[in-house]
Amino acid sequence: MNRDNFAAGERLVSPAYVRQGCEARRSHEHLIRQLLEKGKCPEDGWDESTLELFLHELAIMDSNNFLGNCGVGEREGRVASALVARRHYRFIHGIGRSGDISAVQPKAAGSSLLNKITNSLVLDIIKLAGVHSVTSCFVVPMATGMSLTLCFLTLRHKRPMAKYIIWPRIDQKSCFKSMITAGFEPVVIENVLEGDELRTDLEAVEAKVLELEPENILCIHSTTSCFAPRGPDRLEELSAICANYDIPHIVNNAYGVQSSKCMHLIQQGARIGRIDAFVQSLDKNFMVPVGGAIIAGFNESFIQEISKMYPGRASASPSLDVLITLLSLGSNGYKKLLKERKEMFSYLSIQLKKVSEAYNERLLQTPHNPISLAVTLKALDEHHDKAVTRLGSMLFTRQVSGARVVPLGSVQVVSGHTFRGFMSHANKYPCAYLNAAAAIGMKTKDVDLFIKKLDKCLKTIRKELNEESIVSGVESYDETEDVDSEEMALKLDTVVLDTHQDTSS
Amino acid sequence: MNRDNFAAGERLVSPAYVRQGCEARRSHEHLIRQLLEKGKCPEDGWDESTLELFLHELAIMDSNNFLGNCGVGEREGRVASALVARRHYRFIHGIGRSGDISAVQPKAAGSSLLNKITNSLVLDIIKLAGVHSVTSCFVVPMATGMSLTLCFLTLRHKRPMAKYIIWPRIDQKSCFKSMITAGFEPVVIENVLEGDELRTDLEAVEAKVLELEPENILCIHSTTSCFAPRGPDRLEELSAICANYDIPHIVNNAYGVQSSKCMHLIQQGARIGRIDAFVQSLDKNFMVPVGGAIIAGFNESFIQEISKMYPGRASASPSLDVLITLLSLGSNGYKKLLKERKEMFSYLSIQLKKVSEAYNERLLQTPHNPISLAVTLKALDEHHDKAVTRLGSMLFTRQVSGARVVPLGSVQVVSGHTFRGFMSHANKYPCAYLNAAAAIGMKTKDVDLFIKKLDKCLKTIRKELNEESIVSGVESYDETEDVDSEEMALKLDTVVLDTHQDTSS
Amino acid sequence: MNRDNFAAGERLVSPAYVRQGCEARRSHEHLIRQLLEKGKCPEDGWDESTLELFLHELAIMDSNNFLGNCGVGEREGRVASALVARRHYRFIHGIGRSGDISAVQPKAAGSSLLNKITNSLVLDIIKLAGVHSVTSCFVVPMATGMSLTLCFLTLRHKRPMAKYIIWPRIDQKSCFKSMITAGFEPVVIENVLEGDELRTDLEAVEAKVLELEPENILCIHSTTSCFAPRGPDRLEELSAICANYDIPHIVNNAYGVQSSKCMHLIQQGARIGRIDAFVQSLDKNFMVPVGGAIIAGFNESFIQEISKMYPGRASASPSLDVLITLLSLGSNGYKKLLKERKEMFSYLSIQLKKVSEAYNERLLQTPHNPISLAVTLKALDEHHDKAVTRLGSMLFTRQVSGARVVPLGSVQVVSGHTFRGFMSHANKYPCAYLNAAAAIGMKTKDVDLFIKKLDKCLKTIRKELNEESIVSGVESYDETEDVDSEEMALKLDTVVLDTHQDTSS
Amino acid sequence: MNRDNFAAGERLVSPAYVRQGCEARRSHEHLIRQLLEKGKCPEDGWDESTLELFLHELAIMDSNNFLGNCGVGEREGRVASALVARRHYRFIHGIGRSGDISAVQPKAAGSSLLNKITNSLVLDIIKLAGVHSVTSCFVVPMATGMSLTLCFLTLRHKRPMAKYIIWPRIDQKSCFKSMITAGFEPVVIENVLEGDELRTDLEAVEAKVLELEPENILCIHSTTSCFAPRGPDRLEELSAICANYDIPHIVNNAYGVQSSKCMHLIQQGARIGRIDAFVQSLDKNFMVPVGGAIIAGFNESFIQEISKMYPGRASASPSLDVLITLLSLGSNGYKKLLKERKEMFSYLSIQLKKVSEAYNERLLQTPHNPISLAVTLKALDEHHDKAVTRLGSMLFTRQVSGARVVPLGSVQVVSGHTFRGFMSHANKYPCAYLNAAAAIGMKTKDVDLFIKKLDKCLKTIRKELNEESIVSGVESYDETEDVDSEEMALKLDTVVLDTHQDTSS
Repeated sequence: MNRDNFAAGERLVSPAYVRQGCEARRSHEHLIRQLLEKGKCPEDGWDESTLELFLHELAIMDSNNFLGNCGVGEREGRVASALVARRHYRFIHGIGRSGDISAVQPKAAGSSLLNKITNSLVLDIIKLAGVHSVTSCFVVPMATGMSLTLCFLTLRHKRPMAKYIIWPRIDQKSCFKSMITAGFEPVVIENVLEGDELRTDLEAVEAKVLELEPENILCIHSTTSCFAPRGPDRLEELSAICANYDIPHIVNNAYGVQSSKCMHLIQQGARIGRIDAFVQSLDKNFMVPVGGAIIAGFNESFIQEISKMYPGRASASPSLDVLITLLSLGSNGYKKLLKERKEMFSYLSIQLKKVSEAYNERLLQTPHNPISLAVTLKALDEHHDKAVTRLGSMLFTRQVSGARVVPLGSVQVVSGHTFRGFMSHANKYPCAYLNAAAAIGMKTKDVDLFIKKLDKCLKTIRKELNEESIVSGVESYDETEDVDSEEMALKLDTVVLDTHQDTSS
Repeated sequence: MNRDNFAAGERLVSPAYVRQGCEARRSHEHLIRQLLEKGKCPEDGWDESTLELFLHELAIMDSNNFLGNCGVGEREGRVASALVARRHYRFIHGIGRSGDISAVQPKAAGSSLLNKITNSLVLDIIKLAGVHSVTSCFVVPMATGMSLTLCFLTLRHKRPMAKYIIWPRIDQKSCFKSMITAGFEPVVIENVLEGDELRTDLEAVEAKVLELEPENILCIHSTTSCFAPRGPDRLEELSAICANYDIPHIVNNAYGVQSSKCMHLIQQGARIGRIDAFVQSLDKNFMVPVGGAIIAGFNESFIQEISKMYPGRASASPSLDVLITLLSLGSNGYKKLLKERKEMFSYLSIQLKKVSEAYNERLLQTPHNPISLAVTLKALDEHHDKAVTRLGSMLFTRQVSGARVVPLGSVQVVSGHTFRGFMSHANKYPCAYLNAAAAIGMKTKDVDLFIKKLDKCLKTIRKELNEESIVSGVESYDETEDVDSEEMALKLDTVVLDTHQDTSS
Repeated sequence: MNRDNFAAGERLVSPAYVRQGCEARRSHEHLIRQLLEKGKCPEDGWDESTLELFLHELAIMDSNNFLGNCGVGEREGRVASALVARRHYRFIHGIGRSGDISAVQPKAAGSSLLNKITNSLVLDIIKLAGVHSVTSCFVVPMATGMSLTLCFLTLRHKRPMAKYIIWPRIDQKSCFKSMITAGFEPVVIENVLEGDELRTDLEAVEAKVLELEPENILCIHSTTSCFAPRGPDRLEELSAICANYDIPHIVNNAYGVQSSKCMHLIQQGARIGRIDAFVQSLDKNFMVPVGGAIIAGFNESFIQEISKMYPGRASASPSLDVLITLLSLGSNGYKKLLKERKEMFSYLSIQLKKVSEAYNERLLQTPHNPISLAVTLKALDEHHDKAVTRLGSMLFTRQVSGARVVPLGSVQVVSGHTFRGFMSHANKYPCAYLNAAAAIGMKTKDVDLFIKKLDKCLKTIRKELNEESIVSGVESYDETEDVDSEEMALKLDTVVLDTHQDTSS
Repeated sequence: MNRDNFAAGERLVSPAYVRQGCEARRSHEHLIRQLLEKGKCPEDGWDESTLELFLHELAIMDSNNFLGNCGVGEREGRVASALVARRHYRFIHGIGRSGDISAVQPKAAGSSLLNKITNSLVLDIIKLAGVHSVTSCFVVPMATGMSLTLCFLTLRHKRPMAKYIIWPRIDQKSCFKSMITAGFEPVVIENVLEGDELRTDLEAVEAKVLELEPENILCIHSTTSCFAPRGPDRLEELSAICANYDIPHIVNNAYGVQSSKCMHLIQQGARIGRIDAFVQSLDKNFMVPVGGAIIAGFNESFIQEISKMYPGRASASPSLDVLITLLSLGSNGYKKLLKERKEMFSYLSIQLKKVSEAYNERLLQTPHNPISLAVTLKALDEHHDKAVTRLGSMLFTRQVSGARVVPLGSVQVVSGHTFRGFMSHANKYPCAYLNAAAAIGMKTKDVDLFIKKLDKCLKTIRKELNEESIVSGVESYDETEDVDSEEMALKLDTVVLDTHQDTSS
């Protein structure tokens, strides 16, 4: 409604009331202007009304929503299904152009604004979360692994001789594959055990740098967020090595934005040494659907180079999700989530400690890992070699998601590389264990329910072990390569359940 | 987005593109302005984007959507469920005030505008549909029957002596009950048979007026749209009688807006004689959910009196539905629907004629009824007294909705009044028959599917009758008072189906 | 998804995972079954997923959503606009039948279930809120006033001689109009002043009963929730009078469900004496959009009689809103809202007391009113006869909604009856005052913001009064009949603002 | 609703009606079962009701929607914003696993099914559109360019020696960049002019293969859909060369699914020779938002290898869009769109021919290009060197989107490679021209409006040229590298418009 429309409205209902309504409109517009001008996440979250008004206003700036548009190209933002148009708020043109995923589209001023603002908001939040000196970032509609690949592909053009990526071991397939897909040879650096915790072997890294020679090394690829008992990599020291030998440094910060510790490591690494880019998942840090990542860094022109490597346009969907989420939460809402997560981590630690000790197990001491925890499963493992996977399976069928049992001695071949002790980040970790994490959005009732179910499962298994009844159930189990614990567990559990007529679930 | 916001946007993406987007916004605003200024239904329907922008703009003019509002009253438009708020586009305050359902609400300028515009659009459409001289109307969130009651209650204050309403018989309960509920005594005027068609007995009406004396008569309550073989009432002549004896005249035009014939009758009645108000259903004429009606008339102050009789606020939901619908269709869209309906009526007539003659039945000649048709069911009725209801039941379970079988001799007591030959508008119509109607929105495939299923059912029944197998099925059937044919049929069919193991559906 | 569908799914993805999904489905179904079987509000609110599944399941049971349906009637639930269909979750057939608003529709099993369940849930909540012995109720898509009218129209048939309704004065137009619209003569019983509070004059009521004679009296029409300084009527004693003289008793409980005190009065009245029906608003008690009411009572057959008075079908929209709301909240959620409201009432009392005393005014002592409060405006009123309305106007333009200033001596003619001291429930209340209420859904920030703005406005006015500057602003103001305080205030404020260049807003 | 729920429902409303509703449910379920069992696109599109039921049913199989779930992992599908959850129909877990984008997720059986079904439907449509012998495909949430990159990265592991990609020139940046990003050196093969049309230089291709030697060549990268006057590549012959020299062949079929000619070329190429994969855009062929592509091929294990190259999970959003779209359209709906597009192409040709001849220009003869057309702009180009871009600019500001003017002699450097005559696919095409395309979803009114606006612009420019007024406007224009015609045109137009006070728009 513009001035003329309000004037027309005043002739229909009392001018004083229309004026009041017009005044109210201005407060929505004011919020929008502040966003456009400052490019920062508002402190207080917007209500849905302002948010939808804003999205609607942006959408009608795209040519597919022009009332008088005629399209004679091959890509005109036409939509066959009204359901699809609606769920995308009528943003159809995606983001970016053939040259650059961050570029402005002439046909789609609204989508272009959406893209710019989202990147700006996300940058603001990264600063707020602890990496104060970040200078540039962009949202890319690919998950963390593929985004890392894009970083490596960009580096290739700057380091044409390089063949190797030095990578302190972290047992997650997509991290490893991100290097393979980019066409490089990962050089795995085994971790060292300090107490219960696995930490970066800095000496081994440096030795490998010297052995391979810096110009043959594309980059060091380090990791912050990871499953205990591994801790985040020693970023400060790795960054120093990179600076020292003039080697690029890419950090996988997958779910690290939610932890001030991980963010602090990055901030410190960049201050002391060299970090070229750090990559984080949208879904794991911002509670949006899977499918996007943020590539961020300290050198604007390098981040732009990466964004220019993406050939063609891309989905605006992850950007839209994170924009809606951040505007709804406001920076205060996001800070509150971060604070609650920290509290949940303490609460989960305490509860896990309690329950594990009741079964003569213990919480592993992993002081550097701010998100993931591990408790030993010694008794199970010693008693029967399938008992550990049996526990995983039981938890899964009881709707505990995300818990992860790690038996000893699992071997996995990923893209030709053999990992011994797979899942435990080490060839031979001293014991089997169970992982649980306190991630953003976790609630007290998640912890309580988990602890209750875990307790019940441990009790049941102990009973089974005493009766040696588990044996019959696992005979038919065929260990196959390249199958992860959830699947393994599930198959196993099914068998056992069939045998036992377990009705406790 | 106002000027400042666009300026801020220009700093983020190319000014030229933003300007193009800003220009595009203006074309949406232009449509909105035209609507607000002219108050007419746009010729071409709006696209969803303009429509939702408009609704959004209106909604933020209501105090419950003010960002800085604080509510300390007993009715503040608070909503507990986000789903509910969303489905009402955040219009929560309803329409009207304690004094008048058409009044403006200080707290809700947006809802008030919505209400005014809807009434204005609906008035425009009534003119377009044929009642050119209508001067005033309003949407009321009550179905046709209760809206007629409101008209009668309003007349009571003008005619304190009146006790009777003269009512040419139309066999629909809610018409009759609308008078009972208002506290009046309906004086039923039986119809006269002209050929196959039942028509108003004008002489009987006039005789009754003289017998009861005009000042004791609240009004004549006539009907346009109805099931064949009844035709619409002779409105011209009834209107002339009303004018002559100074008796108010209320017309039940339930689903007559969709028929130019019905609308023409009203136009003519008002021109020649007296019509105080005519009432039409929203759902039946505008393809919206059940629950609203339009009360319209030729004397603005009388229509206002009715609107002032409604004590308190009311639901905005029916107004919102019809507003969305008319803006989506545009007047051209609505005209197209009217035209298609007319064509469907012809098509249905031809098809019904064909199928009925194949079974030695015939299409009743009811030239004045523009919507409903009837075909005789003589063979069935003569053969077995349950065969007619059996047909109704079969059609119902085969997902034919709206077809209506009318057996002979059904007796129904409604609010103490006994109707013989109920459903047929006559004490003793010559034969049993089946009704089908061509209403707005009907498609060729509706007709084709109906004819196919009817043919199949008639064939099955003829076979059953020959085998006398139907008898066994109906023995357990207990005829109960006050049960309509659909229910009756259903019970019956269930029984028969159980017996027959009919697998044809 | 039925068994076959899950089996087909198992062939596409791992059977174990599909089985897990199938199991999860069962927990949604379990909630639905409990609802259908028990007909009670679930203790814990449902999540949106279960709720939408449930609504979807119901909707596909309506014939307009049958895939093979062919419609040949005049009302087939066709919808022209997809937006409209969607916002009603595809429930198009409304509720009820021509005979009865609570009746089941053969064409719409889903809508019929929706209607039954909603009425059942609402009954459960009324019990929970304090009227334990209620036996029957139904949701009607009309606001409180029109619902009261329907009750009176129903009583007419039982008491054909009756002309009068005895009505302890409550200054709200729609209450008065509900009787006028039904065609009865309200007999106004003035309230008596006890301390600051206005209470029912029981002696005057009984005297009037004797004077008019019971058979000429349709009913006593009492009120629970009202603006201070009026208290709720003395229901126990009025109910006893009704029982004694065999006079029906209809209670206007407009926003009383939210207060245990109001509900207790009804429970006690019914226990001790006679209450035929009590009527409450949906929007004011359940935080849904305006437009529905609940008619409830202790005698199932009388409540059914009322539901059978409604001629024709009706909108399902208010029923749908309250169903969604109650299922989302659960009974625990609703109880929490009731508890919070009570706390807000205390908080508002304390704050109002404080601010009023700072300006040498006081909080009126109205111990029986559990929702509304009043503070004197003596200083303003004594100083200048427009100052009170000026305050109302200032609050309104500062986005305080629902506050209500009551000047002395306002006279209003409603439907021919003259009310002196209109708005104050008394011909001559001792002083002007301001109302504020603590209604369901109010938040601490509403109170705080209100108190802050009130303080600011009082300060400004005091300054104006001292400078006598208000005089100039009001000269052009023309007092008109039948205009309520908000409008009056607004006009006035506008004038003053123009004069003063007030920039404080 | 399962059996128990229906039984509970029968106790509330008539069992016969509930049974009818239950029966109706079965027809929805039947459609779903057919889809799950056959994995084919249904012939007739589904109505929204079935579609949403299906999506809802799938979604509740994902663990984030389990009512009793407790999540203790780092990725639990939590969503902060209800708007976001809703727009994704509560599918939060994305598709794929770390190992494989087509893999099944234990936590998300519903999303996994969605992914499988979508790929299956899309495969069915590719066959239907002409590539009958396709055996495998998958949707990837990346646009065409990045998807091509993924194919090249996969091939790298099979051909470790290869450095070159042979690429018949097509002037679209993202095609070129897809090879650069993958780290290969594109070997550009200039096209040959046959009449007006640019066609693949087969001899040059073969010569280059011999020159570079097959083992050094990663693949031939050919193109079907492209802007006229280029035709689709000679796929049959290129495929034969690939087979002959054992070189992989990747086809960029960006918007070719909509053209039976393009699809036929692929089918023939694969029959006669070798095609390893062909890649197509989702948005350009299926009218969904930008952001997805389909990678398809004839060798299932190679296609799986590609899907396993994608490291990590990915967005389900493009899959969801295309699933909704195909289920809404049905295969008949999609075929209808293909047919209409073909008709639009003829219509556009005729109209362009007419208007061009009116200005002494002509439609270029490009018989092999089934989508894009070109008309000469000789007169403009000869008269003034800025007139061609001026036309582009004018069309853009008049809301013609997708038209593309190609001046002579534009030079562009893309990733270090210099393209002379950029945009025209040739170093020196004989004349400047204008492109327009008939893409899927185009309507007659698009063509009519375009032709009208083009005519008007050409008239205006002719007038300007005669008056030589254009000169003044362009002086300030600074030719910059790497700017495409839309932008160039826009800048230019702005200048001219400022000078001329053109009021014709």
